Amino acid sequence: MNTAHALANAARVAILPYFRSIGLSADNKLDAGFDPVTEADRAAERAMRDILAARRPDDGILGEEYGTQEGRSGLTWVLDPIDGTRGFLSGTPTWGVLIALSDTNGPQYGIIDQPYIGERFEGGFDRARMVGPHGTGVLKTRAPRALSEAILFTTFPEVGTPDDGAAFAQVSAKAQLTRYGMDCYAYALLAAGQIDLVIESCLNPYDICAPIAVIEAAGGIVTDWKGGPAHHGGRAIAAANAEIHTEALAILSRAP
Amino acid sequence: MNTAHALANAARVAILPYFRSIGLSADNKLDAGFDPVTEADRAAERAMRDILAARRPDDGILGEEYGTQEGRSGLTWVLDPIDGTRGFLSGTPTWGVLIALSDTNGPQYGIIDQPYIGERFEGGFDRARMVGPHGTGVLKTRAPRALSEAILFTTFPEVGTPDDGAAFAQVSAKAQLTRYGMDCYAYALLAAGQIDLVIESCLNPYDICAPIAVIEAAGGIVTDWKGGPAHHGGRAIAAANAEIHTEALAILSRAP
Repeated sequence: MNTAHALANAARVAILPYFRSIGLSADNKLDAGFDPVTEADRAAERAMRDILAARRPDDGILGEEYGTQEGRSGLTWVLDPIDGTRGFLSGTPTWGVLIALSDTNGPQYGIIDQPYIGERFEGGFDRARMVGPHGTGVLKTRAPRALSEAILFTTFPEVGTPDDGAAFAQVSAKAQLTRYGMDCYAYALLAAGQIDLVIESCLNPYDICAPIAVIEAAGGIVTDWKGGPAHHGGRAIAAANAEIHTEALAILSRAP
Repeated sequence: MNTAHALANAARVAILPYFRSIGLSADNKLDAGFDPVTEADRAAERAMRDILAARRPDDGILGEEYGTQEGRSGLTWVLDPIDGTRGFLSGTPTWGVLIALSDTNGPQYGIIDQPYIGERFEGGFDRARMVGPHGTGVLKTRAPRALSEAILFTTFPEVGTPDDGAAFAQVSAKAQLTRYGMDCYAYALLAAGQIDLVIESCLNPYDICAPIAVIEAAGGIVTDWKGGPAHHGGRAIAAANAEIHTEALAILSRAP
């Protein structure tokens, strides 16, 4: 997957000069709400698209900033140059570059890259590994434990709609520890065997495709809240193993 | 402040082998609630105390793990070897080593160190600077902006007691963005000019002394919720400048 790593490397170069810089400009992409989009986001997606145009001209592209480009190969690159723009604007190293390669069955390979820390998590095509500031490692999700002993992550405490939030709160109340604010980095921690569950809603496809590939390669499970495929976005549960997936899904699947 | 850096270096060496390791043991320090203490915490404090015994035998020590040791110099080292143990156990690089040097007026110098990322923030004795994976920088807090344009951090959404949480919620409702889960790293981001406010409660002295020194050296203000000294712990507000401190304190000071 040299192309995927080339994309991630190019995104790092494009984004890092903007991170923690003074006077960072942020457009407001949505009229209502706060969804900053930075020049870094756009510059990184352009850099990745330039590489794909040269190296993989027959593949399709679905990118957060510049939309869909149809392909002819049956493969699609799903790109989110900065997942976690609120974290990015706050200076937290919790945002990431998400790169997935999908076919008609969903994501087959993915990268979650955190450029500031210099950490890259990849999974798919028989790989499940990370490289970071203290070396390399194999990605392997946690062994089963009860929900009452589990660590659960989500980014925003309100978790989407009121119905979404109520279902999440029921799972959270049974978990040992719930933490917030990690953006896509939470999925990387799950793949790395540090936590048990990530539950989110209101996702776009480009938010979840790379995490699906990385987590599944590491032995975990990612579905929607009914147990079906999650790569179209919306509500997602990522679990370290089948047992805790089943226990949490029993609660989430009752959400209206 | 060679001694302070020697302490931080020793803590890194003691802690990093435990971070993200498999089968990490966690005692439950409090009978009620979840406050894990790891072997890493204790090993790091022992390593720091050994250095102080050799280099600064007349100074006092207040440490999270091994309590108070009276000194004769009028100076006290305030040590929290792992601030953010829940974050540590979750694998997030948001915990830190907190080292402060206090006299009877409060903290005069502090270090916030994040060993995994390799980032160190220091302030006091005419220094206000950081070193991280992408080089060094001067610490300078943000220029004034209205609360409605401000970024606010706290670690736990519930923020202490119900009274604490209600007061926090009033500030949060007026801020542009509220983020969670950063442990002591939020104070470092404030010193680095990335965010405007950190509001917390139920703090111990060793949680806040180092942040006070670093933030004040960078131009910010840290007080309790009445505007008095914060280095004894309890409720704290850290602000990038006097203007936003005043605006947020007007709300927090009404909390019962």
